[in-house]
Amino acid sequence: MSAPSPRPAAGPLETAARAPGRGRPLARDRASPAGAPYATVAHAVGWLLVVLAGAMLAPAAFDLAERNPDWSGFAAAAALTGFTGVALLLASRRPEPSLDVRSAFLLTASCWLVVSFFGALPFVFGVAHLSITDAVFETVSGLTTTGSTVITGLDTAPRGLLLWRALLQWMGGIGIVVVGLVILPFLRVGGMQLFRTESSDRSEKILASTAAIAGRMLALYTVMTAGCFLALRACGFGLFDALVHAMTALSTGGYSTRDASIGAFANPAAEWVLIAAMLAGALPFSRYLAVVYGRPRLLLEDPQIRLLLLIVAAVAGVLALWLLLAQAREPEDAIRAALFATVSVLTTTGFGAEDWQTWGTPVLGLFLLVTVLGGCTGSTAGGIKIFRVQILGSAALAYLASLVHPNRVVPMRFGGRPIEPDLVIAVSSFVFFFIGSWAVFSVVLAALGLDLVTAISGAATALANVGPGLGPVIGPSGTFAPLPDAAKWALSLAMLLGRLEFFTLLVLLHPAFWRR
Amino acid sequence: MSAPSPRPAAGPLETAARAPGRGRPLARDRASPAGAPYATVAHAVGWLLVVLAGAMLAPAAFDLAERNPDWSGFAAAAALTGFTGVALLLASRRPEPSLDVRSAFLLTASCWLVVSFFGALPFVFGVAHLSITDAVFETVSGLTTTGSTVITGLDTAPRGLLLWRALLQWMGGIGIVVVGLVILPFLRVGGMQLFRTESSDRSEKILASTAAIAGRMLALYTVMTAGCFLALRACGFGLFDALVHAMTALSTGGYSTRDASIGAFANPAAEWVLIAAMLAGALPFSRYLAVVYGRPRLLLEDPQIRLLLLIVAAVAGVLALWLLLAQAREPEDAIRAALFATVSVLTTTGFGAEDWQTWGTPVLGLFLLVTVLGGCTGSTAGGIKIFRVQILGSAALAYLASLVHPNRVVPMRFGGRPIEPDLVIAVSSFVFFFIGSWAVFSVVLAALGLDLVTAISGAATALANVGPGLGPVIGPSGTFAPLPDAAKWALSLAMLLGRLEFFTLLVLLHPAFWRR
Repeated sequence: MSAPSPRPAAGPLETAARAPGRGRPLARDRASPAGAPYATVAHAVGWLLVVLAGAMLAPAAFDLAERNPDWSGFAAAAALTGFTGVALLLASRRPEPSLDVRSAFLLTASCWLVVSFFGALPFVFGVAHLSITDAVFETVSGLTTTGSTVITGLDTAPRGLLLWRALLQWMGGIGIVVVGLVILPFLRVGGMQLFRTESSDRSEKILASTAAIAGRMLALYTVMTAGCFLALRACGFGLFDALVHAMTALSTGGYSTRDASIGAFANPAAEWVLIAAMLAGALPFSRYLAVVYGRPRLLLEDPQIRLLLLIVAAVAGVLALWLLLAQAREPEDAIRAALFATVSVLTTTGFGAEDWQTWGTPVLGLFLLVTVLGGCTGSTAGGIKIFRVQILGSAALAYLASLVHPNRVVPMRFGGRPIEPDLVIAVSSFVFFFIGSWAVFSVVLAALGLDLVTAISGAATALANVGPGLGPVIGPSGTFAPLPDAAKWALSLAMLLGRLEFFTLLVLLHPAFWRR
Repeated sequence: MSAPSPRPAAGPLETAARAPGRGRPLARDRASPAGAPYATVAHAVGWLLVVLAGAMLAPAAFDLAERNPDWSGFAAAAALTGFTGVALLLASRRPEPSLDVRSAFLLTASCWLVVSFFGALPFVFGVAHLSITDAVFETVSGLTTTGSTVITGLDTAPRGLLLWRALLQWMGGIGIVVVGLVILPFLRVGGMQLFRTESSDRSEKILASTAAIAGRMLALYTVMTAGCFLALRACGFGLFDALVHAMTALSTGGYSTRDASIGAFANPAAEWVLIAAMLAGALPFSRYLAVVYGRPRLLLEDPQIRLLLLIVAAVAGVLALWLLLAQAREPEDAIRAALFATVSVLTTTGFGAEDWQTWGTPVLGLFLLVTVLGGCTGSTAGGIKIFRVQILGSAALAYLASLVHPNRVVPMRFGGRPIEPDLVIAVSSFVFFFIGSWAVFSVVLAALGLDLVTAISGAATALANVGPGLGPVIGPSGTFAPLPDAAKWALSLAMLLGRLEFFTLLVLLHPAFWRR
């Protein structure tokens, strides 16, 4: 970063002249002014901390209104966070309007890492008095919309604490939607180049288009949350419960106000509302904009949405039939229970209406599978993502057909569009790191003393940002509190890796990233 | 197959003229004479059955010498098998010298399926009196060199029965070596085109080169088996035990003459011999020919062999250290136990010197991982195969590097050789079907009533052709006998799918395969 120019390089021509071999016309590798990427990153992180500090005032106000001394914890955290944010803003006054690939990686990773630490402050300062380990785990779990928790006694916890957990998930949800719609396609992470638009293709505009899209998405997200809130109110949820669950359902996070999760309310109508909200959170948010702009057909023509709904229907259908026949439950009850459990797991939310671990081993196996699959890209859901499975599946079937008729060209497609071999390799690389990480984290967790089911399902649930694992400890009716500290740090790392789609953090470990 | 010509099409020119689009110069899609592929397949299967009938006479002779009435079961099975084989030979007197892709798929699948059923006859006719389900399971497990067993009481079983199990593995071992060296590269199955040679590229010569390579490999395999037999004798093994274990170690099958497997002998020297034999069985056999022809360097330069040895050293090293420190065992004992267990699992043999399930959860997790990985291609070992992991890993790292520097070309390599995107897609398609099958079989086995660990590890051990699973039922100290019949059929199918690398069976399900 030694180029002395105070402005970004003039144009794509210059880049093309420097680019060896491949000759891509994109202006993504240009030199930046000295220190500029760090200034840009510091500036963005500063803004984010100021917003975070502002968000901390909401639970503080709640606690203050209820005369709960916990308000001071939030206030202290807000002060420290806001001070740091303002300091960063002052120290980095001139952000670059353009952003090269390297800075974009650095920016994305820094934002999530920094917020994970500052967001944990209320848990440390407040009445919860969590250890640093537990506080960071809870915050990362919230921000990544995973929903694994180390806090027990939610039923009697102060409202400020419950609200903060919900806010973390809600902010993490909108955060990943924006990252998934703009940043990851720009960075070509794990096949996300498939979702590039004109605006995500131009590095000069990346910050501006991120801000523009973030604004529109935030408005949409707020309206959807308000809708869910009103629907839950209509079903008889109290103000606070409706607020928290609207936020954690749409973000597919799954934090609840009760230890028994949704099951504690025994409210069938509310369960239907939450099924719809979780599903809404797992569909690509860009499609909602299309609906708003009068092109609702795009929603149903999206291949990801189609397959997601097909999987939900198939899994929930089989499950409902089994609950009807083997457990002799009422039809509405069976269908709702099956749908709720399937949608909660597939959308990686993790709400529990009842403990489906008692539904038998096949259900566990099926859910473990569906968990890893996850929702659509550009949504708040985690997992490998539907489109990646579709791309690898299309490639595998095309390859199978090419074996039968070696001289016939069998095109690989995604939703009718032909796809390039490079895209398949990008997706297969993502899956390689996903499965590799799953294996490594499973072994590490087992080495830390966890039993095999807890280790394997814990690694999966963290990487896929689901929430509950399998087994008596971390299953839907357990918590992550009893795990050793080292396991909690490993799982926190796994949640961030999964949320940022591996490559965003892995590039930072690549020696070439730090070479001039 | 309605072309009236009695001879194969004239040359590659004609094919190229017919080939739409891609224009590959390979003569692989040519028309065959009417009925010719079925005649060729029937002829090859006929020969195989005659050989199988001959092999059945060996255990018959053993039993007769020991005045065990079981000999009549082998004799009856041999008669039925030999009769069917001769009938097929007579009914299909004129085999085609050439083989198109379609016939090659049909031939490979038919051979394994037919031998799986005829090979089961001695178990049904003999004193073991297994059910058809158990007999086919045991035979498929043998032929695929998996080594899972439904037979208990091996210690007192007649020698003919024990010899037949060992012979199935030994024949299955040489069978898959030949298929892996010639047929799969010719069929381009799951990236095996990487191992094409001049001889596997020409469809006119495929049968002749298969026969030539099979002859050389059989000689090599016999010499290696004899060497292992003599070494085991030198360590104090009896004639019969040395014979059986030499055959089942080199074929990485893992059938033993004792219920307690190798542990029953408490013979450290023999364990070292078996470690070497299992490893030898998991290396690519083509490299041994290079050694014979005076180019031993090729053995150590093979990237698959290097990574395999590296993994063995790393896993066994950690394990040995742990046995030394935590269990305070003697150095030689710890190293041998660690090496034996690691090599037995990684080479997908499944011999047990001691029950490593008691070594703790991390070992289980590590072994589950290593199991799925498997050995080298062109060997008798199963699993995904080392080279596939190397290719996907190289592609993933190249992709990661390309994210850091979008304008720099980062080549994907295997052992220094650049690889094409098509190859990566072929490998990723293989892994897609492997993981997809693993998921489907896990859910099916769970639905059949197996517990989660048994279902998941059972599906893995069958698909990867390992042998023992995890847990109390099918773990290293258990057997597959208590499983329900449906689970045994599912596992038999899984073993064949894994052994024939998925595509060889899956193409038969493709509608285009049967279309004229």
